[in-house]
Amino acid sequence: MGKITEILRDSSNDIWERILKHPFVVELFRGSLPPEKFRFYVIQDYNYLVTLTRCQAMIASKLEEPTVIRRILELALADVSTELENYNKLLNTLGLSLNDVIRARPAPTSTAYMNFLLTTCALGGPYEGLVAILPCYWTYLEIARYHEKELANNPVGIYRDWASVYLSPEYEGIVMDLRRIIDDTSDHLMHDISRLTSIFRQASIYEFMFWDMAYRMEQWAI
Amino acid sequence: MGKITEILRDSSNDIWERILKHPFVVELFRGSLPPEKFRFYVIQDYNYLVTLTRCQAMIASKLEEPTVIRRILELALADVSTELENYNKLLNTLGLSLNDVIRARPAPTSTAYMNFLLTTCALGGPYEGLVAILPCYWTYLEIARYHEKELANNPVGIYRDWASVYLSPEYEGIVMDLRRIIDDTSDHLMHDISRLTSIFRQASIYEFMFWDMAYRMEQWAI
Amino acid sequence: MGKITEILRDSSNDIWERILKHPFVVELFRGSLPPEKFRFYVIQDYNYLVTLTRCQAMIASKLEEPTVIRRILELALADVSTELENYNKLLNTLGLSLNDVIRARPAPTSTAYMNFLLTTCALGGPYEGLVAILPCYWTYLEIARYHEKELANNPVGIYRDWASVYLSPEYEGIVMDLRRIIDDTSDHLMHDISRLTSIFRQASIYEFMFWDMAYRMEQWAI
Amino acid sequence: MGKITEILRDSSNDIWERILKHPFVVELFRGSLPPEKFRFYVIQDYNYLVTLTRCQAMIASKLEEPTVIRRILELALADVSTELENYNKLLNTLGLSLNDVIRARPAPTSTAYMNFLLTTCALGGPYEGLVAILPCYWTYLEIARYHEKELANNPVGIYRDWASVYLSPEYEGIVMDLRRIIDDTSDHLMHDISRLTSIFRQASIYEFMFWDMAYRMEQWAI
Repeated sequence: MGKITEILRDSSNDIWERILKHPFVVELFRGSLPPEKFRFYVIQDYNYLVTLTRCQAMIASKLEEPTVIRRILELALADVSTELENYNKLLNTLGLSLNDVIRARPAPTSTAYMNFLLTTCALGGPYEGLVAILPCYWTYLEIARYHEKELANNPVGIYRDWASVYLSPEYEGIVMDLRRIIDDTSDHLMHDISRLTSIFRQASIYEFMFWDMAYRMEQWAI
Repeated sequence: MGKITEILRDSSNDIWERILKHPFVVELFRGSLPPEKFRFYVIQDYNYLVTLTRCQAMIASKLEEPTVIRRILELALADVSTELENYNKLLNTLGLSLNDVIRARPAPTSTAYMNFLLTTCALGGPYEGLVAILPCYWTYLEIARYHEKELANNPVGIYRDWASVYLSPEYEGIVMDLRRIIDDTSDHLMHDISRLTSIFRQASIYEFMFWDMAYRMEQWAI
Repeated sequence: MGKITEILRDSSNDIWERILKHPFVVELFRGSLPPEKFRFYVIQDYNYLVTLTRCQAMIASKLEEPTVIRRILELALADVSTELENYNKLLNTLGLSLNDVIRARPAPTSTAYMNFLLTTCALGGPYEGLVAILPCYWTYLEIARYHEKELANNPVGIYRDWASVYLSPEYEGIVMDLRRIIDDTSDHLMHDISRLTSIFRQASIYEFMFWDMAYRMEQWAI
Repeated sequence: MGKITEILRDSSNDIWERILKHPFVVELFRGSLPPEKFRFYVIQDYNYLVTLTRCQAMIASKLEEPTVIRRILELALADVSTELENYNKLLNTLGLSLNDVIRARPAPTSTAYMNFLLTTCALGGPYEGLVAILPCYWTYLEIARYHEKELANNPVGIYRDWASVYLSPEYEGIVMDLRRIIDDTSDHLMHDISRLTSIFRQASIYEFMFWDMAYRMEQWAI
């Protein structure tokens, strides 16, 4: 029997293939992405980051094992400290202020994705929550590795810097830790595999849609 | 000072105007709506109904006053008893089975709306939850009244029967009760009016989008 | 393999034996219970009833199956309608008003039991919640049957009336329904049996302590 | 108008007076506390520490302001890292292992206090949660200051070391931060002052009862 996270990853392979090849991703790593699309993506990322923190806090509140609680709280704290500081630096480089970002309305896809994560973490058990946030972390690792070679010739410093984060050993460590925490409870979770697969797939679909939202600079119809 | 629900209603008037005149609504009351669009709407409504029940249960669990808890539980119970039985009859008339419906994947807008409601009810206080579910009940009352005259000449029996529910005194009573429960705590809620307005407006936007989803027979892009 | 609820019941048999023979219970069915102790019990029961309703609402919000949601909501609604009306009649007979009761401070044991139920229902899955509220319903059925013969010679009408509720076919039906809902998901729950057993046992312990609290007319030390 | 936390503190002054003078506290600072009572206290503290972490995680998940979320997550993380490591060292000094502690059943008062905190944090808003955990932090600061002079002549090194933590500038900083976070939203919270006062008082009562539980080495009656 494979590990839970491998089963989950396989079951959403068709979605992940399309994420790796999405024009936003491809153009970002090549350096041909129009700057206004990147700026749109970055602005939408702020509320997502705060939402991720709140989700991790909810997950931590439902876990039993102190060492696992600790690891998830470290991630949550990193999101509202290191990550948020890096985010502010990036805003600066882009000539944006945190106020611009806070005032920006989350786009429809971003809103839908955030409410999916919050609902899953609020109403489900801790492992359902962990499975919901895993595609976000894990796809970024795969994206960065898949397109790594193109970075060398990427003429846009901001894009290269942004991408390098996801190629760092620290980032790989986060993904490995999340996977290990889930896989360590495989025996207990396997009876719930169909529900977990469906959560993982929906989160993967939202990851694809998030890139697409940014590429289209999606607006509310009303 | 006006009542809270009047303030909320006024603040979303532009959205409600567009709901009243949405082609799905107009064609439904005239009888010119293509049957496949109505069928799509009905199928999407099933998961929404179960979600509404779960939201009302969450709201009831957070309320303090036994008489208010009772009224909300009555609504919740009606959703999974009377409403669900009426729904099954409607499915029958349309040649659909409950199994077809349960197997149907909720469309993107429907999913987004449901997760918005669940998140608001799970993470917010009981009155935030009540404000989130109010547009669903209240817009249907306004829609039915606004288009009432056209029903007489509506050639489609299924559409006439469907619409007549929202013109019944019972239905008006539900909307009045929900409004009264919220308005009775106006003093306490007024300091939170900006958050409540934003919840009410977002729910109203999702109501518009739900009609539009059905009219377009919306599919997932992936 | 036995049914889940039989396993749970067996695992707490030592506690249940002591509940059946607790002086409060014995004297209540014989008619020798001092009226002030019964009055204390009744006053403490009010907040418990509202808490039970809120717990059932939380459980309903987490369940998936509409027929099960419906049954739990029926119980919740009965608690704040029929039950609460019967409760008010009983208060009347005892010369108490609802205001007296609402103003009464929940005793330490009552507070501890209610917060145990609320925590279990808020943080756990729906079946953990159902297992937590089961001893309350089920022990009253067993108590009434165990002491049924003594009721005939019980000189106190109020005690006889109170006890007769738990001997009614309706009441047995509620207990059977709760047990069946849990037993119907036995396969899914069996891997979690140690946690469920511990919840059921703690709830049974609180049932014993609740009777003892009333018998001692327990007060806060501070 | 005073600050919220001053109002809360004043309203529970009678309880706090009794906490400062509880025999467990007095004997601990003097050095005359029987070691088995201290050991009992320490064992009970483990589950409380994990519960506090889970409560803080829940509070963080409901807060809006990233800087406040960050501060609460820092406290939560400290509980399952630094605090837990210090706790393990203390266990070592006492000749206890973490396994002994994990196997120990939480005493009735400890269970009641933990479920009160969890219920308040799970069902209430973030500031209700913060008010519920404040007495735990703040009373320890006041206790340490009130008895500081006696520490010099305290013959028991373990007791002196334990107490010194609560006299550190770091610890005072935590209490000040918690108070400031609550006081900074005073305007918004003042309309809810009666509910907050009642939460703060109940938490203070449980703090008193926790010391008393340890002094009596409280056991379950059943």
